[in-house]
Amino acid sequence: MEFKLKSIGIVHSPFKKKEDIDSKKYADSGGFDSVQGELEIFNEFVGGLKDIEGFSHLVVLFAFHKSEGYRLHTKPLLDDTLRGVFSTRSPNRPNPLGMTVVKVIERKGNSLKVSGIDMIEGTPILDIKPYTSRDKKSSIKLGWLEQKKNKTKIEEIK
Amino acid sequence: MEFKLKSIGIVHSPFKKKEDIDSKKYADSGGFDSVQGELEIFNEFVGGLKDIEGFSHLVVLFAFHKSEGYRLHTKPLLDDTLRGVFSTRSPNRPNPLGMTVVKVIERKGNSLKVSGIDMIEGTPILDIKPYTSRDKKSSIKLGWLEQKKNKTKIEEIK
Repeated sequence: MEFKLKSIGIVHSPFKKKEDIDSKKYADSGGFDSVQGELEIFNEFVGGLKDIEGFSHLVVLFAFHKSEGYRLHTKPLLDDTLRGVFSTRSPNRPNPLGMTVVKVIERKGNSLKVSGIDMIEGTPILDIKPYTSRDKKSSIKLGWLEQKKNKTKIEEIK
Repeated sequence: MEFKLKSIGIVHSPFKKKEDIDSKKYADSGGFDSVQGELEIFNEFVGGLKDIEGFSHLVVLFAFHKSEGYRLHTKPLLDDTLRGVFSTRSPNRPNPLGMTVVKVIERKGNSLKVSGIDMIEGTPILDIKPYTSRDKKSSIKLGWLEQKKNKTKIEEIK
């Protein structure tokens, strides 16, 4: 089954290209908390933003538009072992979809100023949803990422 | 900009149609925790599941395949006021994309037994990602949903 999607807006980010992003930040729960950017929603869809200011956090679904193909086994930025692509957040996936939770700072018309940006400039936005208490999970296990997270922390302490 | 996506698998759910889902559960953080189902991944993509058992929770991106068109202002199931569609989790969105975080119970080959299912039987899966500490936010504000949540709780107490 095939699905056609269209962009509803565009991300404005301080990261102009992939290489601008410090990959170590991916292992840190607050790694991108201070990175501010803008979600610009195309005029056609602005009506859908009504009531959005009431939510502190939003789920942003976007396209990894610079992704070119995929492999089912991939070496994540944070690791040197081949992992299943669905066990990673690699942009090179069967469907190049990204998901990031951002914090709302301010809405001005068709623009949402947010923090928590880990996308690059020009990333096409596909959907925005309110982040709800159902999305907040406790007692989470992080698989291969757990070791990397601890390792990063230990290295930072050293 | 347009994007073409394909399904990588299918959801098996105790909910055979939309009407089988008790909509009050959407307001409750653990509303669907006990609902078990299966994520069946097509053989072509099974290699991508390597290492997935290490993660306790997964982000599932899927298509609202029964959705027919959208309105920018919509009445959510939990409310009787028109809300901006991006302030709701309505299936009728400009891009009919859904996102649910599920808990992994067991993997058997191309099948993931999970709990937290709020999709209906036959829902096309577009992507699976590990849920990480970056997806877990504290001090969240829930906008219009906050009142509904409290109201539901108060009604339950009565």
